[in-house]
Amino acid sequence: MQQEHFNSLSKIVLVLEYDGTAYAGFQWQKGRPTVQSSLEEAIFKVTGENRRVIASSRTDAGVHARFQVVSFRTATRLSEEVLVRALNFYLPPDIAVKAAQKVEFSFNVQKHAISREYEYWIYNNRVRSPLLLNRAYHVPYVLDIERMNVASRELEGEHDFASFASFSPWAKNTVRTVYKAFFERQEAIVKFKIKASSFLTHQVRHTVGFLLEIGSGKRTVEELKQVMQVKKPGLAGPAVPAYGLYLTRVYYPENVELKYENLFNQSW
Amino acid sequence: MQQEHFNSLSKIVLVLEYDGTAYAGFQWQKGRPTVQSSLEEAIFKVTGENRRVIASSRTDAGVHARFQVVSFRTATRLSEEVLVRALNFYLPPDIAVKAAQKVEFSFNVQKHAISREYEYWIYNNRVRSPLLLNRAYHVPYVLDIERMNVASRELEGEHDFASFASFSPWAKNTVRTVYKAFFERQEAIVKFKIKASSFLTHQVRHTVGFLLEIGSGKRTVEELKQVMQVKKPGLAGPAVPAYGLYLTRVYYPENVELKYENLFNQSW
Repeated sequence: MQQEHFNSLSKIVLVLEYDGTAYAGFQWQKGRPTVQSSLEEAIFKVTGENRRVIASSRTDAGVHARFQVVSFRTATRLSEEVLVRALNFYLPPDIAVKAAQKVEFSFNVQKHAISREYEYWIYNNRVRSPLLLNRAYHVPYVLDIERMNVASRELEGEHDFASFASFSPWAKNTVRTVYKAFFERQEAIVKFKIKASSFLTHQVRHTVGFLLEIGSGKRTVEELKQVMQVKKPGLAGPAVPAYGLYLTRVYYPENVELKYENLFNQSW
Repeated sequence: MQQEHFNSLSKIVLVLEYDGTAYAGFQWQKGRPTVQSSLEEAIFKVTGENRRVIASSRTDAGVHARFQVVSFRTATRLSEEVLVRALNFYLPPDIAVKAAQKVEFSFNVQKHAISREYEYWIYNNRVRSPLLLNRAYHVPYVLDIERMNVASRELEGEHDFASFASFSPWAKNTVRTVYKAFFERQEAIVKFKIKASSFLTHQVRHTVGFLLEIGSGKRTVEELKQVMQVKKPGLAGPAVPAYGLYLTRVYYPENVELKYENLFNQSW
């Protein structure tokens, strides 16, 4: 019986974009608005099924996503294209499904992800920007981007990033591989881009907070190296606000049956 | 007496940035939220004076500004820098003063402006973008940008733009000079940039609406030329929504005492 029911189901992967401002994060929380509950509600409206959604990365309250990957099981016979349209019809304006794809049941969006990419946006101008409200962190002082990039290179490679995590009693292994980490200036907007195997709790926000102190001259690259060696949660920081952070991409190995051309947010 | 009072006043020019989403436009309207009333309220809180603000361009409801120029008279002795900080303290988060400068009384932000620049943002992707909600107009069909740029070149120069205006009984002279008009694609975001001596009511929104129909193949460049020759208000269109439109710059002649390095939104 169980097996029969199982066979009638398929597994769907979705790529989401969302503005995290109004949400208490991705993951379901009792009585609070979350991306997960909005999405599960839309799935219910489209399919009539109560389904649980799994995310590749659980973004915190206020954090945005341009490319979040989630999956759920469903008995629906709707095509991928119709599913995208139908879900977007019911989703609130601050969440959208960018793509959908049927996958093998064995595919796990969380466990099979080999790396994640985040961006942190800084608005570096004397005066705040109303058009970047809840989109970029306002830094009114001069930043030495070159120096921040020298420091960023220290993060690259396999390291124990314990000092950059918020304290989590369950985080036993704090070793991660950072594939790239750098700042890029586009006039007043400074973007920090970081790609890693995965991230510890609040790691990007603590990292940017520390690197900003290096950029303003308050801290040195030498201090960054020392803090990394101490491996004590909460040592690096302060954490910058969540609203400047964007999950921008999740990567999977090529042998996993995920047609990237379908999933990627194409601009034609 | 009047003269004495006049002498104690100075004239201040401000550069504003605002998110127009929550406002019924720049100009004061009874009982409705406007950028002008928010700014005049902030000026009252800072100076204790009830002052009327004049804008270089009156933006419509929902239209944004990255560089709006306004002026007002004041008896305050606060420096330009302190005035910027104090006004931003009282202004709501969706409006900011980017710069302030004392000017000659004879300087008129509206009459002395020699040209204005607007941008119109289009999000050209099959699926809407939550992060560009109220920032860009979603166009889900394929656009031929090259063809739209061929059409845009027809707008350049001195022409009667009556067909691109909404009907305004008071608009007698509908001849304007367009200095440049073109589309630029940055992945899924398509920006239309236009600079002209000044603009008729809803001119940019009607222009973009018509050019999008050329870009989708519904209309031809030849039809654009014909519509321009007919000179009938409301003929071109349809008007695209206000929320994709940004006032990006106002230009003044060099002999007007406006230190552009102060006014311009510097990124250091």
